[in-house]
Amino acid sequence: MSDDNTVKTTMVTCTAPVNIAVIKYWGKRNEELILPINSSLSVTLHQDQLKTTTTVATSRSFEEDRIWLNGKEEDITHPRLQSCLREIRRLARKRRNKTNPDLDVAGLSHKVHICSINNFPTAAGLASSAAGFFTHLLVCLVWKGSLLVEVCMGDLSSGSWVNEMMNLTGLNSESFADRKPIGSTSGMQTSVKTSLLLKLRAECVVSKRMEDMIEAVCQKDFSTFAGLTMKDSNQFHATCLDTYPPIFYLNSVSQQIINVVHKYNEHYGETRVAYTFDAGPNAVIFTLEQHVPEFVQVIKHVFPSESNGGKFIKGLQVDDTILSEELKQCIGLEPMLNKISYIISTKVGPGPRVVEDHSEHLLGSDGMPKKTQ
Amino acid sequence: MSDDNTVKTTMVTCTAPVNIAVIKYWGKRNEELILPINSSLSVTLHQDQLKTTTTVATSRSFEEDRIWLNGKEEDITHPRLQSCLREIRRLARKRRNKTNPDLDVAGLSHKVHICSINNFPTAAGLASSAAGFFTHLLVCLVWKGSLLVEVCMGDLSSGSWVNEMMNLTGLNSESFADRKPIGSTSGMQTSVKTSLLLKLRAECVVSKRMEDMIEAVCQKDFSTFAGLTMKDSNQFHATCLDTYPPIFYLNSVSQQIINVVHKYNEHYGETRVAYTFDAGPNAVIFTLEQHVPEFVQVIKHVFPSESNGGKFIKGLQVDDTILSEELKQCIGLEPMLNKISYIISTKVGPGPRVVEDHSEHLLGSDGMPKKTQ
Repeated sequence: MSDDNTVKTTMVTCTAPVNIAVIKYWGKRNEELILPINSSLSVTLHQDQLKTTTTVATSRSFEEDRIWLNGKEEDITHPRLQSCLREIRRLARKRRNKTNPDLDVAGLSHKVHICSINNFPTAAGLASSAAGFFTHLLVCLVWKGSLLVEVCMGDLSSGSWVNEMMNLTGLNSESFADRKPIGSTSGMQTSVKTSLLLKLRAECVVSKRMEDMIEAVCQKDFSTFAGLTMKDSNQFHATCLDTYPPIFYLNSVSQQIINVVHKYNEHYGETRVAYTFDAGPNAVIFTLEQHVPEFVQVIKHVFPSESNGGKFIKGLQVDDTILSEELKQCIGLEPMLNKISYIISTKVGPGPRVVEDHSEHLLGSDGMPKKTQ
Repeated sequence: MSDDNTVKTTMVTCTAPVNIAVIKYWGKRNEELILPINSSLSVTLHQDQLKTTTTVATSRSFEEDRIWLNGKEEDITHPRLQSCLREIRRLARKRRNKTNPDLDVAGLSHKVHICSINNFPTAAGLASSAAGFFTHLLVCLVWKGSLLVEVCMGDLSSGSWVNEMMNLTGLNSESFADRKPIGSTSGMQTSVKTSLLLKLRAECVVSKRMEDMIEAVCQKDFSTFAGLTMKDSNQFHATCLDTYPPIFYLNSVSQQIINVVHKYNEHYGETRVAYTFDAGPNAVIFTLEQHVPEFVQVIKHVFPSESNGGKFIKGLQVDDTILSEELKQCIGLEPMLNKISYIISTKVGPGPRVVEDHSEHLLGSDGMPKKTQ
């Protein structure tokens, strides 16, 4: 109990990046403990191009927990969000008890207001599903509390060769017009229940592949890294297809991007470019910096876009270049008009960070979202 | 050696059906001995709708082996065709030696002329690839010689419940416009080399599934048969996707057909309809006779066709019926215009047979294709 009559609002804002798994996990072996069916390994994309910013406020004056995602209030009673909040409070309590019994944790029993936005359109489908969103939120909040959570997901970004050597490009390919693809949470559960190949993959394939991937990263062997990334993406989508009823995330544009990448690599006789697809049709492309301009030009060649003009490439600047007739002929695919809206050019980046500038809080001192967003 | 100066032409014509595998095999564990990576089980479609007719002639006057497929002379030096001819001659020789040393096998050392046609357009993609074609040819020729070949492929058609209870519908969905899909022979070889899931499927999944399938057939349990058929089709295409580079046979129309079938079954709370896809985008649909009219109407509803008018349904007659609004609402998919050219309605049928009517030979007495084809 406090005798102070002014109502204090505690607020913190942090940003979290988008992670792209190169060894993918799909489904949990234990839903309650959130234990994944196999280990996975991810690359962190740079926040300058793709980030989630989240402000959390606690105050004695708040009457209920509330959440705003991308400017729209959402139902905080969603079980996933509730278990997320429970977990954060449990960790904070544990931290107080174990390491610092005198820690000011007045906010622990208070209600929270959460406001979170992406700096990329949710339509891009890059970890913008509720699932991805909530995961970021968890990472963000927990990290602020300086609590480390043991996760199976490795992080290739910090201080490794990848940081210097790789550029990433997110491609927004068109989604199915008339079908809402299954979300990742329920998709995973169905796959765990029905896909025999998912089980066999987890038991017989992933651990060796994980070793090989880590070895490739240590050896700075991009082409092995790229090959394994593509194989693992394909195998993940194979287990989706082996799910009953089957789940399709790859559409005809995704398939054509896959064809383009293989034809491009074939032309050079080495694996210069890799694709990976999560639970949606959008490709994430990995390549070394020096190959970015040419490969982007290849994409423009196969997927000409009339509508976006100069905005076809977002994010980091990509130099113009001219494709050789030989390369064009080798790719040899019929152009698909207006099937890719734009490319986001980015690179590998750092993990979550706290925003020190208070003017960047997404919530006002009244605990409500600022109007400026 | 014969003293007869007239040149005798020996000729035989037989027909072979199209088989559709419900437990699929993809790839060989021994290319030379043509040993499949796993057992498979097939349903024989009725020849009235889908058949291959083949005439084989031998004569001392023929100067070389020749083959005409669907009216066009093809290169008989194709390794697959050569090994096929070798095998037939080996079997015929074996038969003479073992069972009937005095058998007239004058033709054995003679050259052969082969002429073969389908009664369905090759564009339908139902076992119309060179591979499928040659397999039928082998079956046809060998069978004529009354030689039994041990094959892993079972046959569900003869005298079983399936014959009475099932109707089949082949759906011709559009192929990729700008990409020639990989043929099954080279596709299989790449899969055997690169797909870990194909190996795991062969080792851990198929034998149990085969048992369950045979049990379902014996129990006349259509819905179990249908469920296993769909799961096995999906798993086969999953191993294609796990191949490196990945192989895509299913296009957006195939995916929509899959969605329609699951929504239809969901509506009735039972598995009334099954799909299966071989190495191409065309669906084969299995259902019981009484459900054919309604399901065909569902297909017409989701895939309206302007161009073909009355010819949308080929083969067996299908009665008209009206869909309930409830069912339409449950299917609830946006119509895809002109994406299916037509449906072939057929049923389960008998195996290969000899054509007794000599006027149906495809080759004339001169050993050349008749002009009338």
